[in-house]
Amino acid sequence: MTSLLIDRIGLLVTNDPWTGAGPLGILRNAAVLAENGRIAWVGPSGEAPEADERVDADGACVLPGFVDSHSHLVFAGDRAAEFAARMRGEEYSAGGIASTVAATRSASDVVLTANAERLVAEARASGTTTIEVKSGYGLTVEDEERSLRIAASVTRETTFLGAHVVPAEYRDDPDEYAKLVAGPMLDACAPHARWADVFVERGAFDADAAEAILRAAAARGLGLRVHANQLGPGPGVQLAVELGAASADHCTYVSARDLTALSSSETVATLLPAAEFSTRAPYPDARRMLDAGVTVALASDCNPGSSYTTNMPFCIALAVREMGMTCEEAVWAATAGGARALRRSDVGWLTKGSKADLTILAAPSYLHLAYRPGTPLIREVISGGERDGRRGAE
Amino acid sequence: MTSLLIDRIGLLVTNDPWTGAGPLGILRNAAVLAENGRIAWVGPSGEAPEADERVDADGACVLPGFVDSHSHLVFAGDRAAEFAARMRGEEYSAGGIASTVAATRSASDVVLTANAERLVAEARASGTTTIEVKSGYGLTVEDEERSLRIAASVTRETTFLGAHVVPAEYRDDPDEYAKLVAGPMLDACAPHARWADVFVERGAFDADAAEAILRAAAARGLGLRVHANQLGPGPGVQLAVELGAASADHCTYVSARDLTALSSSETVATLLPAAEFSTRAPYPDARRMLDAGVTVALASDCNPGSSYTTNMPFCIALAVREMGMTCEEAVWAATAGGARALRRSDVGWLTKGSKADLTILAAPSYLHLAYRPGTPLIREVISGGERDGRRGAE
Repeated sequence: MTSLLIDRIGLLVTNDPWTGAGPLGILRNAAVLAENGRIAWVGPSGEAPEADERVDADGACVLPGFVDSHSHLVFAGDRAAEFAARMRGEEYSAGGIASTVAATRSASDVVLTANAERLVAEARASGTTTIEVKSGYGLTVEDEERSLRIAASVTRETTFLGAHVVPAEYRDDPDEYAKLVAGPMLDACAPHARWADVFVERGAFDADAAEAILRAAAARGLGLRVHANQLGPGPGVQLAVELGAASADHCTYVSARDLTALSSSETVATLLPAAEFSTRAPYPDARRMLDAGVTVALASDCNPGSSYTTNMPFCIALAVREMGMTCEEAVWAATAGGARALRRSDVGWLTKGSKADLTILAAPSYLHLAYRPGTPLIREVISGGERDGRRGAE
Repeated sequence: MTSLLIDRIGLLVTNDPWTGAGPLGILRNAAVLAENGRIAWVGPSGEAPEADERVDADGACVLPGFVDSHSHLVFAGDRAAEFAARMRGEEYSAGGIASTVAATRSASDVVLTANAERLVAEARASGTTTIEVKSGYGLTVEDEERSLRIAASVTRETTFLGAHVVPAEYRDDPDEYAKLVAGPMLDACAPHARWADVFVERGAFDADAAEAILRAAAARGLGLRVHANQLGPGPGVQLAVELGAASADHCTYVSARDLTALSSSETVATLLPAAEFSTRAPYPDARRMLDAGVTVALASDCNPGSSYTTNMPFCIALAVREMGMTCEEAVWAATAGGARALRRSDVGWLTKGSKADLTILAAPSYLHLAYRPGTPLIREVISGGERDGRRGAE
């Protein structure tokens, strides 16, 4: 039994409205005790119990570790030249996602694992303590299976995304590929996956194909997620709600009917503003969703094509600048919202019994995550009650 | 005599078109030798001379340190609550800039110096090796003088900005305040300042007042800079060019005539996109300026009211996403452009004789500064040939 006391917290975001004030459950001059990886006590700094080790937050803000519920970290190569061309307004013919598929297929396990580990470490250094990782650049039974094995080596939140795009070799028979995904590929991947996801979009998978794949995955005991309504209106959100998916991701083009469906469901709308930033696409209207009663999460969408960032503070700043979210809503969406999108009740908040995953900021308030955009503000990240020894990242 | 070799640079941005390819003067598989704080040699990695110390860049990209030619780092307090209210679309009545003036006036030298040092250190950790710092939150002879003394303790690029705003105590007699600025305040500040700057804007200083202040400053041997055309069209850009100012800063609202004036002058247009980000204002049209032949610099505008970031990579990412700049133009503007805006030929490029100020990225290309937005990509910063010991910031 080891215990760690984080003391002299100027402003503590608990996300527990029964513990503190407002939706973020704010406590001032607080302390948090972690024991054996869990939160054992939260209270006023002066009343903090003894502990084996003590961290002095020195008046800084502490919040739950970010829960990044959408990323694609198993890949090789990068697409910097494609990005630069897109920003110049040029068409880029070097293959887009197909180039990442080719690079991923030809990379060794060692290379893919090292790249995923590098990005998880980078995410963690910016305050992320839970991260979901999808497959989707293998697109063969073998390459999807190994992508998920690699994903499972860096996180427990693994998602089978064989239905990311129809690979070139099935271009003339997309139905055949969808059958492969729902059959042998799912069989191979399900043991390593907690979730299944389908990219429902014109040019990717239609509602029928998506439904077949998702139902097959649900029958194997996987939870469901959907890439929905990113590039245009479509059936993705409705399908996600109908099938009880944990999350409909992107949601850039949503109808009033989609909003009603979301707000009367347990399906979270996961917004990925870094993708709109990096593709110069319109941002989803988070304000409209929140006003309609939809539960919103923020995630990075980290991938080498459309959003090559793991930085949740950057996503928070964009959500506030571009999507009409308040700072409080954005911080909640990046922590508790992400936890809801992963159906996790042990992360995303700091309350007795929850995982001791938290971030000490180099700032007095969570407001600074949006107020000081681009600025590394993570002083220290504690995960499962363990310090990472990282300091001075200010 | 001490020497430092930075070897095995995968991609070296020299900004010297006679040394390397394109406007960024790119060399591949290069090395740089620093001796006594200056660049002594640039060439192919295999031909690098011996040195006292060697840094292995391990294939990463190296570029000149960022030159941030516009910041306001001498202040106390923060305005996070004002920012949050603005983002919620609410009016905020707590005083805006006046609240920073009040906090600055009542702060001790120790507090002001520590705050400026903290921000300079933060800027440096994100790759900035030259930074201009303005006064402008004192607005009395004594408080401006001490602001410049403090600025001079952290940088040689100090700017007297007594003409930032007319303080409340002169609200009924702004002309009297302008006279104070051009007279006793300038007398007190000139010994600590390299530059003078005026905020030319409706509600701040008109062209006549600005011209009188700037001419008085020039007569004292100070170089000139102008806050111009930020909030609406106005005479700022024309005045800057007429008086031979080194830089016209902001330039959000510029006419065709302004563009012609800039492009036929030595006056740099310094763009500050983090200010537009943090105030939800329209971005200046950098593309139009570049196409008209204007020299463009990028700077942070770091200040507690409208742009509380020191992060030049963030500014580069915004310039590419929002202002139509290519990655190459943005990187040039944040390095060589800033040097032009400060009329410095010893920084902003890496060539024999220039200052050995450079940044090793945790990335293979400068493209990643925009391609990986929000991601800390600075592996190590070398300033005047000195290593800062900082590693692993990726």
